[in-house]
Amino acid sequence: MQKTEIVEVVQAELKNPILVEGLPGLGMVGRIAVRYLAKNLGAERLALMYSPHFPYYVVVSKRGDARLLRGEFRFWRNTKGDNDIIFLSGDSQAQTIEGQYEVADTILDFAKANGVKTIVSLGGFRMETEDIPKVIAAATSRELLDKAIGAGAIMSGAGNPVVGTAGLLLGMAHFKHIAALCLLSETRGYLPDPRSAKSMLNVLVKLLNMDIDLVGLDKEITKAEQIVAKMQQIEKRREEQAQKMREQEEGRVKYIS
Amino acid sequence: MQKTEIVEVVQAELKNPILVEGLPGLGMVGRIAVRYLAKNLGAERLALMYSPHFPYYVVVSKRGDARLLRGEFRFWRNTKGDNDIIFLSGDSQAQTIEGQYEVADTILDFAKANGVKTIVSLGGFRMETEDIPKVIAAATSRELLDKAIGAGAIMSGAGNPVVGTAGLLLGMAHFKHIAALCLLSETRGYLPDPRSAKSMLNVLVKLLNMDIDLVGLDKEITKAEQIVAKMQQIEKRREEQAQKMREQEEGRVKYIS
Amino acid sequence: MQKTEIVEVVQAELKNPILVEGLPGLGMVGRIAVRYLAKNLGAERLALMYSPHFPYYVVVSKRGDARLLRGEFRFWRNTKGDNDIIFLSGDSQAQTIEGQYEVADTILDFAKANGVKTIVSLGGFRMETEDIPKVIAAATSRELLDKAIGAGAIMSGAGNPVVGTAGLLLGMAHFKHIAALCLLSETRGYLPDPRSAKSMLNVLVKLLNMDIDLVGLDKEITKAEQIVAKMQQIEKRREEQAQKMREQEEGRVKYIS
Amino acid sequence: MQKTEIVEVVQAELKNPILVEGLPGLGMVGRIAVRYLAKNLGAERLALMYSPHFPYYVVVSKRGDARLLRGEFRFWRNTKGDNDIIFLSGDSQAQTIEGQYEVADTILDFAKANGVKTIVSLGGFRMETEDIPKVIAAATSRELLDKAIGAGAIMSGAGNPVVGTAGLLLGMAHFKHIAALCLLSETRGYLPDPRSAKSMLNVLVKLLNMDIDLVGLDKEITKAEQIVAKMQQIEKRREEQAQKMREQEEGRVKYIS
Repeated sequence: MQKTEIVEVVQAELKNPILVEGLPGLGMVGRIAVRYLAKNLGAERLALMYSPHFPYYVVVSKRGDARLLRGEFRFWRNTKGDNDIIFLSGDSQAQTIEGQYEVADTILDFAKANGVKTIVSLGGFRMETEDIPKVIAAATSRELLDKAIGAGAIMSGAGNPVVGTAGLLLGMAHFKHIAALCLLSETRGYLPDPRSAKSMLNVLVKLLNMDIDLVGLDKEITKAEQIVAKMQQIEKRREEQAQKMREQEEGRVKYIS
Repeated sequence: MQKTEIVEVVQAELKNPILVEGLPGLGMVGRIAVRYLAKNLGAERLALMYSPHFPYYVVVSKRGDARLLRGEFRFWRNTKGDNDIIFLSGDSQAQTIEGQYEVADTILDFAKANGVKTIVSLGGFRMETEDIPKVIAAATSRELLDKAIGAGAIMSGAGNPVVGTAGLLLGMAHFKHIAALCLLSETRGYLPDPRSAKSMLNVLVKLLNMDIDLVGLDKEITKAEQIVAKMQQIEKRREEQAQKMREQEEGRVKYIS
Repeated sequence: MQKTEIVEVVQAELKNPILVEGLPGLGMVGRIAVRYLAKNLGAERLALMYSPHFPYYVVVSKRGDARLLRGEFRFWRNTKGDNDIIFLSGDSQAQTIEGQYEVADTILDFAKANGVKTIVSLGGFRMETEDIPKVIAAATSRELLDKAIGAGAIMSGAGNPVVGTAGLLLGMAHFKHIAALCLLSETRGYLPDPRSAKSMLNVLVKLLNMDIDLVGLDKEITKAEQIVAKMQQIEKRREEQAQKMREQEEGRVKYIS
Repeated sequence: MQKTEIVEVVQAELKNPILVEGLPGLGMVGRIAVRYLAKNLGAERLALMYSPHFPYYVVVSKRGDARLLRGEFRFWRNTKGDNDIIFLSGDSQAQTIEGQYEVADTILDFAKANGVKTIVSLGGFRMETEDIPKVIAAATSRELLDKAIGAGAIMSGAGNPVVGTAGLLLGMAHFKHIAALCLLSETRGYLPDPRSAKSMLNVLVKLLNMDIDLVGLDKEITKAEQIVAKMQQIEKRREEQAQKMREQEEGRVKYIS
């Protein structure tokens, strides 16, 4: 394998498909969102993407088989609306600069070949917040941006960088005459963040006019927040311990000098 | 040299050959196992593999000659069984991500060209254990996996990563319509681990239905374990020393405050 | 995108054009200088340069659009003089060794295709100085060097390295039969340094026989110097604090021993 | 520039030429040796080598010009002996693994095209020694090795690695049906080491049956040794200072506990 390749699994004639991308990234927000949608809609596998720029290991499956790290395209036939959806998620992003550009290029060629005219790329936006995570939007056209804002997103501040595949898809789409929207949901980003993904999905579902129940995410959110609470407790205890030691140390210094 | 190349040394018509790969890795388990087999069976050199992704130095031989780092394929004609064996070991794995994929690709092409239909890749599995090292298996088919289990291996847990050439061969084999089995033997992994290699060979010899005495490894095992014992002693003394110093330090702190 | 590409925006027949390059680098000197000139002359966009060796993110614009990091060529029709000017600035330099050579090569090919016979590349030269920054010159011909010296530059000392695109353009120009001059302005280099850029522009404007008012830079200079003054104050206070702590610490040690 | 290139400066019909390579490396031994020979023999420039794997900067010359980092081939017509000599030295080795292999490959192709049948590559061998540096040899043929030993070299121990271009030329020469000898001279390796280079030259001059006075190196050797003596003095004083502080510290600890 000398370059990034997409291997078709089935040939599917799709109706004005929109590509929704959510590869692993900050807080795993895009990945959680795309996988939730694809699973709940019963999307079927369309193609697999392999790349010599992905990390060089395989993961063993439940059946004792092993597979390369890969991206996975799934499709969903939208019988009630105008646009079928192609979902892209996967195990990893490319590990080198040149690899990032090559992977984005390959995704865009595949999208074009499948008649995609609009891409929505998803990611996280680093922010320490207790509030409901806000969803930030940038787009290649005012029309797309307005739709996202209409669905609950807010416009990105100028100068914000969007790193990785989500960003490059947005930046490179116009070379292939494809419109692109990028949605970033606020997240601390350290851990998989289903709460941030839910915020994202609230916007996305409205935007794509889908009929999906997001309640299935709540169990994951509770679990994730228990983990965070536990870690904060540990951190707090460590901080108290350190504080106590500083006081002892200062006491000792004062005593001596 | 712009890319990985395999240079044939002899042309050998082989009978349903199986490729057994053991390049350097965790605990050198795969390499020790393959070299032991190849040596004891009197396997002959088939081909050499060079790569611009191997480290850029040469090693001087006993005769004062020097050679590039390389992989070495040897073959053994199995007069009693159905499958001849091709062994692959060598000096190094590729040093870059893209190089890892390219080397695995080149090995698979060579295997295909030589009529290989099954690959067994060998490696180490990091585990702190005092017991006899267990051998873990993953495979591209249930049939191969069952054979390995029948020979004493246990099935890998889901999600285990297999890093490097052993993993990529397993993950990429099906692109070339080759079946692949990966065996990983438990090892601490810090040092060459012939004990782990012996566990591996117990499975492999049974699996390949070979008649080989493994007693030759025991001297190496004794030597390796003496080294480990010595290092643990040194470590223990260092730990005691550190403990003593902490106590002195604490004594002093208490005295002062 | 597999390699660096320059996309033409308009076709412009230019009169003996000179290319003036100022990509980001030490103190942003070249970039500030080129952008100031291009803006004040009302230079128009000629072409955009993209590269898989630029960092893999996009930046969001004021309008909520996003764009790849890129280089931007602008042109200015010099109605009073002999040479039109092509300006090159941008967001980033290439991030890898091979990328640096590829980007310089691509720029030179584009220059040649547009009839450029002279290139002036701009950069910073690290120097702690309170004086007016000096401008150092190196060139592919004695004639060009003398012109730069006539315009107020001083000759570079032998052995000085010129790093990055500014250097490679100078070093590679003769392969394409293009003359090149490199101007480096002294700068501390930590922060964008408009004062250093102004020194540079004083030379450049004279050299290119341009009629441009540089007073527009003074506001930026004042702002930059306020920032530096503030940082120095902070640094000074930190130093005093550290000094005080060292004294306390020494006092205590003396008491004990 | 996408790959390593050698640009011919003159066309020279050479008589059974031997290539002697000494690029920068440990102690700069090879470079000092090759440059001393080329200069004293009045060797003329034959070709220049450029590579996108060399560091991406240019160096300014005395005349205010600047040039890319490069390798330089010079030739010397040996009117008294059988073999003309091609010398290769330069500014740098390749900075990446793949670049190292590409550069060595390009050198070998150039050597072959110029009728070279023997290569001598030079380098340093790290060794802390007060004695006269020994010169270690490895070669692609017993005949060459014996010649080197006859000229005062000693045979390399098995397993010694030879890193970089000197090593790769030795390892890759046989692919082009060229014989190769590598000479490594003992050096501490931290600083340019003309004393080690002189040891090397004593062997090389005898081996190539050249009539060259090496006394010109003695001034450089004296200068280099003064620098080393000075650095050792500084290091010694630092060590004494540290020792004194440890004693104070220990005294204090003992006092307290």
